Order: sequence, then C-alpha cells, then structure tokens
Amino acid sequence: MTESVLDYMTRLGRAAREASRVLARTSTAQKNRALEAAAATLDDAREALAAANAQDLAAGRAGGLDEAMLDRLALTPARIDEMIEGLRQVARLPDPVGEIRDMRYMPSGIQVGKMRVPLGVIGIVYESRPNVTIDAASLCLKSGNATILRGGSEAIHSNQAIARCIRLGLAEAGLPAAAVQVVETTDRAAVGALIGMPEFVDVIVPRGGKGLIERISREAKVPVIKHLDGICHVYIDSAADLDKAIRVADNAKTQRFAPCNTMETLLVHAAIAARALPPLGEIYRAKGVELRGCPRSRELLGPGTLEASEEDWSSEYNAPILSVRVVDSLDEAIAHINRYGSHHTDAIVTESFTDVRRFLAEVDSSSVMVNASTRFADGFEYGLGAEIGISTDKLHARGPVGLEGLTSEKYVVFGDGHVRG
Amino acid sequence: MTESVLDYMTRLGRAAREASRVLARTSTAQKNRALEAAAATLDDAREALAAANAQDLAAGRAGGLDEAMLDRLALTPARIDEMIEGLRQVARLPDPVGEIRDMRYMPSGIQVGKMRVPLGVIGIVYESRPNVTIDAASLCLKSGNATILRGGSEAIHSNQAIARCIRLGLAEAGLPAAAVQVVETTDRAAVGALIGMPEFVDVIVPRGGKGLIERISREAKVPVIKHLDGICHVYIDSAADLDKAIRVADNAKTQRFAPCNTMETLLVHAAIAARALPPLGEIYRAKGVELRGCPRSRELLGPGTLEASEEDWSSEYNAPILSVRVVDSLDEAIAHINRYGSHHTDAIVTESFTDVRRFLAEVDSSSVMVNASTRFADGFEYGLGAEIGISTDKLHARGPVGLEGLTSEKYVVFGDGHVRG
Repeated sequence: MTESVLDYMTRLGRAAREASRVLARTSTAQKNRALEAAAATLDDAREALAAANAQDLAAGRAGGLDEAMLDRLALTPARIDEMIEGLRQVARLPDPVGEIRDMRYMPSGIQVGKMRVPLGVIGIVYESRPNVTIDAASLCLKSGNATILRGGSEAIHSNQAIARCIRLGLAEAGLPAAAVQVVETTDRAAVGALIGMPEFVDVIVPRGGKGLIERISREAKVPVIKHLDGICHVYIDSAADLDKAIRVADNAKTQRFAPCNTMETLLVHAAIAARALPPLGEIYRAKGVELRGCPRSRELLGPGTLEASEEDWSSEYNAPILSVRVVDSLDEAIAHINRYGSHHTDAIVTESFTDVRRFLAEVDSSSVMVNASTRFADGFEYGLGAEIGISTDKLHARGPVGLEGLTSEKYVVFGDGHVRG
Repeated sequence: MTESVLDYMTRLGRAAREASRVLARTSTAQKNRALEAAAATLDDAREALAAANAQDLAAGRAGGLDEAMLDRLALTPARIDEMIEGLRQVARLPDPVGEIRDMRYMPSGIQVGKMRVPLGVIGIVYESRPNVTIDAASLCLKSGNATILRGGSEAIHSNQAIARCIRLGLAEAGLPAAAVQVVETTDRAAVGALIGMPEFVDVIVPRGGKGLIERISREAKVPVIKHLDGICHVYIDSAADLDKAIRVADNAKTQRFAPCNTMETLLVHAAIAARALPPLGEIYRAKGVELRGCPRSRELLGPGTLEASEEDWSSEYNAPILSVRVVDSLDEAIAHINRYGSHHTDAIVTESFTDVRRFLAEVDSSSVMVNASTRFADGFEYGLGAEIGISTDKLHARGPVGLEGLTSEKYVVFGDGHVRG
C-alpha cells in the first residue's frame, strides 16, 4: 500500500460509517438475503477456502506455531459446515432492530417510548480462529451494524477468502461492500487506528486472550465490550439436595475444562461437607482433577488433595484443577464469591427459598444460577441464538451478548403539535 | 489531612464498595426511609444551610465569580424547598432493583431471565450547583448504588452542610454512612483518583460544562456516562401541517434559550418554505432571536437575517440565535442532521406516515420526535420521575437517564439439578 495505515483505516472507518446509515434502514428480508447468499457462496468456495487456509497453516508451521494454535487456525470441512450453518441460523433469528416498546401517554399529552436501533459501526479485534470472521460479521449485519474486522495476522489468507464470500453475499442482496470490511494489512498499527477513531467506530469487541483484551481496554478511545476472566463458583448450601449438588458440582467442573464458564472453586457449607465432599473427591479423582483444598475440605476430599494457597481463590485454571473451601454460612459464601470471583457466573445448590433470594440479590455476577451447572452460561443455552462473547462489564451488555447487545435504544416521542408550557 | 489525597480517596472507594454490598440487599422501604429522613433533616437545617452557603457566596464574591456563577451557587429558600421536594419525589418513585423479567424455559429445561440490579458505586463530578448533591445522591441511593460526590470547590461549605443532612438520614434508616460520601478536600487530585479506581467505582457521571466532561472522558479508567452537546433540529417536512410546524418551531427555540434540548438549527423543505418561513421570521424577530440563514431561507425570513457560515451548522448557541436552512428532500434533512447534529434530540413536523417511519429509523439521535417540541427531551417529561443527566452515548443509557439508567441487568438461571450434556 502506498497510503499510510492510518489513512487506510480512516478510509475504512468513513466507509463503514456511511454503510451503517444504509444498514439502519435495510429491511430484515434484505439482511437475511445477504446472510443466505454468503452461506451459499461459502459452500461454493470450499476449495478456495481450503487453499487459502493451507497457505496460513504452512506459514504458521514455518513460523513455529504450536499444535493448539494450528488447530485453532485450521478450516476443516466440518468447520466450514459450521460457518455455513451459523450464517443460516443468524438469518433465522428475529431481527431486534426497529422494535418499539412501552409507548405511553404522558401528562403533557405526548406519547413516549423506546425504539431499538443498531449501535452503528462495530470493530472486532480477534486472534487466530478464522471462523470468528463469519460469527461476528453475521451477528453485526443482522443487528444492522457495519463491521470492521481485524483478525490475527496468522489467519490473513483464510480471513480474506472468507471476506470475499461475504462481499459476494452483500452484493447479491444489494448492500454496500463496506457493510463488512476485513482489514487487509497485518500491520499492528491498524489495531491502534481502529480503536482510536470514535468518530467512525461506536464500539470495539475484542475476542481473544486476556492480554489482548486488557491492552485494547487500556488504549481504546472507543467503548469496549470486554470479556475478561471466568472464575466461577458453585456453592453447596446447607439446605442442598445432595444428589443435585453432586451432579451440578461434577458437571460444572468436568464437562469441559477450558471454557470460561467452568467452575474453578467449589464452596461447601460445613453442615453438608461431610456428606458432599467424600463422593465428590472420588468423582474428581476418577476424572483426573487435581484438588486444592482448605484444611477442612482436605480432610474430607481424601488422599492427594493439595493445600490451597491464597492465590488459588483468585485463579482461573482453565484446566483440570479445582480449589475447594468449606464455609460456615451463606454470608461467608457470598463474601468469598464477591471478593475472589470475576463476576462472571456463580451457582448455588439449595432447596431453601430464602437462601435463593439472598444469593440472587447479593452475588454480583453477570449470571447467577440456582441448582444448575455454570456451564449453561452461554448465548445458545440462554436462547439468544448466538453470541459475540460474554461480557464481564456491568454497563450496557452483561453476560452473553447476542443480537440485542449489539443494539441500543433511542427515545421516540409522538405529538400532535405539542409544545412545552 | 495527614494522609495523601490518593490514600483518602482509596479509603472512600473501599468504604463505598462495602456499602454498595449492603445497599444491594436493602429493602425499598428502608431506602425510602433514608430519603424521607434526609428531607426532614434538610428542612430542620435551613439556618445551617444558609450560613454555610453564605460562606461560599462570600468567598466566591471575593474570588471574583461572576453573577451567573454566584446565582448557580446560591441556596435560596426556594431551592432548599426544591431539594426537599426532590428527595420526597424520589422516595415515591418505583424501585427498579430486583425486577425480574422474561423468565423462560429453554429446550434444556433450565429457566432463564433477567434481574435488575444496582451498578454498584457511582462517582459524580459536578460544578457549582450544590443542589446536584441532593439530586444525584437521592437517585443513586434509590437505585441501590453507593455514591461518591465531588462538587465544585466554590460550593464546598454548602455541599458539606447538605452531606451532614444526608448522613443523618442514612443513620436514621440504619444504612451505612458510606452509602453517600461527599469528598471533603478541594484538591483537584481527588478527581483524578476518583476516575482512576475501577476496583472501587463502576461508573462516573460528570455534570457540568463540556470542558469538564471531555477532560473526564479522556482521563477516566472507569466507564463514563457522558452528556455532551445538544445541537438539536426541527425539520418542517413538505407534508407538515403549517400550524403545528410554526407552533413547534417557535417553542423549540424560544421557550428557553439555554437548555441542551433547545433547537439550534431549523430545516425547512423547499415546498413549504415560502409559507413557513415568513411567519416564523416575524415570531423570532419579535422574540429577539438572531437569524442566520442559507441563501434561500434569507430571502424568506425577512430583513436582518444574517448569512449562515459552515460553522453555524455545528454550533450549539445556547443563546437567542438560530440557523435556518432550506432543504430539497427528507433525505437531505436526515443527512444534515446526522452530519452536523450531536445525536441528542431531533424532531420532524409532518403528516406523512412514511416520512415519520423513515425519520425515526434513520435519524441517529437519542430522542427522535414527531410533531412535538425538542424541549420535551427531559426525564420528568418522559415519566422517569427525575434524571441524573441526558446521555449522548449510545452504549448503556441513551437520552435522559433516570433510576433505570443507574442499574444493570444480570441473567438469572433456575434449574432442578440441571447439567449440560
């Protein structure tokens, strides 16, 4: 490129802002047509996608990427199927844009309500997985937003190949090409430019490791929808049903170890610990989970349980490791969760109505659960249809972010020549 | 103080965070008791308030504050009445905290919905008006948030006197004193500390001039609910009812000149300009409004109309000045508003259903109005009961911010021992 990265990104930003004006008035049918057309184009482009991906994989191998990174980068036929199905699923979701609610007459005679509208332009910064290009573009498009996508440099050829399919889909539906733009330079300055132009970009969604998210949050001049740690808890209350407790505490840790909604610390009320912890200790050991307990839980969890350090209570292991603590009251459990947790997802197992009410009101997390595994914290499980991430922020979107989280509401006022007296 | 400003503010922050845990589980009745008790205490403390305010006014006069500043600073008996009535009004508002909505069964069998909860700790930074101390504290308290208030140094004695009344109210209701804290130092470093501790403060609401808001937005490490410019438009469509058009265009400009929701630019469709502009020109001239028009509007507005410069279209006058432009289409009007406006409040006057639909969907502003004066953009007029400000942001709260804007929603999940398969 002869133009500077900043000029290039400014050009993308200006085009995205213009496209966002068009998208704000685009019908649901037209947006769906673009999504369906992009799906069909992806299906036709399997060979081109595989070839582009092979280039990235070869470069990654030569550049010394590890196996986990290469796996994330690979566009297997099954992953292409998933991208195609993802586009079609998003096309089937109800369109939140234009929804008007709560129109009410005021004493002055005006009628006031709220209307759901797109945010405008959304910047997505992500790492190696090329399928994020489709996930993010489809949710943003369906919610009427223009998108600028900046993927990892190791996936540049795959992302460009996917971008071509999206562009064909947009063209087939008569939508501007700038509705979805994939940044074509791998220069890192592009990220700095993207997160530094509030006049063209309304919000940034970083998807990737904690380092990426923290860096972007620190440097962005544009609001950021963050997804930081998932230090999730299950608390087995004194009034818990033992079977439910064991089922939930098992599943929350062992169904998968890596996700952010996996339990990292188990809290158990002293009154039920002697019945709950020995069988749980056996289950965890059988599934290869390393246990780190407080002194009281170590006695009950059985052989091989390590001593938990203060650091364990605020650790997100993303691994087969679990810290366990016996507490003497619901108060102590809630205090532990609010102090050491990451305000992501926390569950209580109990039959006590009063304890449920307190747990819901006092645990300061984006998802609070009763008698259910923390693993349910997910846009699909919550009926959002899809998610662009799980927000650990309190403002705007909190928890799994679907189409609605990519929109905003404006006030609508109807009158009949009304003036203020 | 022997401790540093940073240590002092950290102490306030930590205490506020602890108090916010208590407030999150405080009943509506108890919060209302505190508000009513503070109102009664203010009523009893009129002499002390007047004495404290006299100190500030004397210092202000000695320090060369202008009359407008001194006026804003004055706690007249009428303003004390308003503060007392404000507290009682907020006590009467419905409590948004704890509201649970949309609990629905999912295919997995879990039940998912959302619950409204306080944001946590809110920092308010404001300038000379001491009544903001009561407005902000009461709204934050009612919505279950702890507050740290940092008023202007010129109002320090008045604010401390008001703070004593609030503390007595809190004590009478058995609530922690740290639920509402007024910063006692006038050191400017206190603001820097307040906006720089995301571990203790969840959101900052700056109330004051554009300079204050821009500085805080730039420097804050905590999310900011901003209220920037109000460059509001009325667009008289070709299908407008002439009487309604004149009534609305008159009121939107002349009911009051200073507020942010006052019209700054009038747009008129060419097909109706010859009928609308001559009578409006007379009205505005009679009310002392300086007119600055495009060439076509100057011919119709009559003698004394100045030529509008490019700069006029993006000026917030807050004064008896109006810029006027004739446009050839609804498209041109919408494009003008989105380009030059501040996304605050914009109105169309029309009888055309189709033009209404387009204006609502395409004008990117926090309030879009039809056949009503922009002056209605206000928390009281919208039925919010009170407002802490008008947000020009798109994320989280947009437009007038009342109790609901000071809360957030978390997901609630109910199961019966459900696990993920």
